[in-house]
Amino acid sequence: MKDVFHAYIIDLQNRITSALEDLDGQARFHEDQWHREEGGGGFSRVIQNGNLFEKGGVNISAVHGPLPQAMQSYFNVGKVDFYATGLSLVIHPKNPMVPTVHANFRYFEMYDENGTTVDSWFGGGLDLTPYYLFEEDARHFHSTCKMVCDRHPIADYQTFKDKCDAYFHNSHRDEARGIGGLFYDYCRADERFTMNDWLAFQQDMADHFLEAYIPIVKKRMDLNYTEAQREWQEIRRGRYVEFNLVHDKGTLFGLKTNGRIESILMSLPPKVQWVYDHHPEAGSEEEKLLQVLKHPKNWV
Amino acid sequence: MKDVFHAYIIDLQNRITSALEDLDGQARFHEDQWHREEGGGGFSRVIQNGNLFEKGGVNISAVHGPLPQAMQSYFNVGKVDFYATGLSLVIHPKNPMVPTVHANFRYFEMYDENGTTVDSWFGGGLDLTPYYLFEEDARHFHSTCKMVCDRHPIADYQTFKDKCDAYFHNSHRDEARGIGGLFYDYCRADERFTMNDWLAFQQDMADHFLEAYIPIVKKRMDLNYTEAQREWQEIRRGRYVEFNLVHDKGTLFGLKTNGRIESILMSLPPKVQWVYDHHPEAGSEEEKLLQVLKHPKNWV
Repeated sequence: MKDVFHAYIIDLQNRITSALEDLDGQARFHEDQWHREEGGGGFSRVIQNGNLFEKGGVNISAVHGPLPQAMQSYFNVGKVDFYATGLSLVIHPKNPMVPTVHANFRYFEMYDENGTTVDSWFGGGLDLTPYYLFEEDARHFHSTCKMVCDRHPIADYQTFKDKCDAYFHNSHRDEARGIGGLFYDYCRADERFTMNDWLAFQQDMADHFLEAYIPIVKKRMDLNYTEAQREWQEIRRGRYVEFNLVHDKGTLFGLKTNGRIESILMSLPPKVQWVYDHHPEAGSEEEKLLQVLKHPKNWV
Repeated sequence: MKDVFHAYIIDLQNRITSALEDLDGQARFHEDQWHREEGGGGFSRVIQNGNLFEKGGVNISAVHGPLPQAMQSYFNVGKVDFYATGLSLVIHPKNPMVPTVHANFRYFEMYDENGTTVDSWFGGGLDLTPYYLFEEDARHFHSTCKMVCDRHPIADYQTFKDKCDAYFHNSHRDEARGIGGLFYDYCRADERFTMNDWLAFQQDMADHFLEAYIPIVKKRMDLNYTEAQREWQEIRRGRYVEFNLVHDKGTLFGLKTNGRIESILMSLPPKVQWVYDHHPEAGSEEEKLLQVLKHPKNWV
């Protein structure tokens, strides 16, 4: 399974970066390979200062070896070996009318001292962070997620959608990071489903990432915007930073277990502002977005 | 003691904000009063878009009531009442030649069910975060700290300096946030010293904050700078954000115990950049700063 999924994400990274480069038309992804001292490594691909994409990363990694101490306590297991592979992406467009997107598709295995697999699971999801709310974009993104879930009996759109809202939540501001999407984790085989069922769902969802995002980019990339709208985008990007550095388990985990810092923090937006006690005007487009972030909606 | 120190910090806030306004010559501090549901509150004073100061806050607060659950576990105590008061400031100048400064002077009391004080301590410190290293500025700042420590037998400059280096450390990048200063906490009475001795040191140090910082501002505020130097400042501000959101106990504590978000996050810089895998040129002024952040020095 790990070899199948690893081969899959190598191809997925190629497909996603090619499609985004074609769309940008100007900037190219720059690839860095890195090695993890304890075993494995990855390929980070970063795009910066593009025509459409101000900063973005599409990273894959496959790491293995003894499970680090911090992860032992996190998973509540003793000394075991592990293998983890996945693709993680964050794209920050320049135009504030185009939403930021994040996706992650991962697979994890744990082994006992004889090398026998004692546990394995899939996890992942995708979510959208607009700066201006176009309801039809939110519906398109969620519809694509739901369409994929609906054709896999193991995947329940509403459960994964609710988990996404619960997870990508800036509790210190009581607002969502964005308009959500899907989040699922610890997807294991049980009496009804096999790991191959999860693999099929995971691949189907990852295969539809571009279909969920690209049409939205195309629809909004040529819209004009003002300096004030750009400022609003940078302020909202500050909330994105707050979530990733204060609440995101993956980020904190990486920072505290000696991960490759630049690959972990490629998720942070390029230009960000913090304005003291900023509140958009009542009735404005900016406030309309905030209302939806305060009260997550069902989009399909 | 709590009334004495609280009256002192009210006056201190006035002195510091007046001096900074005079120096800026353009922007004024804007004051917000806030109330804490469980008891107490504070006055946040924020300056933005000044001639010299792009963003800064000088906040005082005095809060009391039952010790919140999260703080009970943090201090390893049961249900007690508490009182805490202090001044906290962060100043982000516009000119990258002028360093950012942070200071905090606080006092804490805990009571048993009869209202008897069972514990009390002072804490605080001040530290400097330059974007370009002027060694004479670092020496001036540290000399002022040492001069004050040296006239109080309870205060040991080297101990407090080392604690500052240890605390304001971005462990995930293995570099200091800035060039340090002083950090002290849990300063209690013992067989040799009384709380009045600590009070005298705390006030003397806080009284010298302006003397530690203002001469540096005056010396650098009229220096010219380039767009590239400004960009370096914004990238370094990103490291400041990383420290405050990932490592700073005070910030995380506030965020997780329902503090006033805007007062806690006033410490975040106004404009920030994250550039993937940025490294200054060998031998440049930017790299000279990094070397000192990687290997903290003794400045006096």
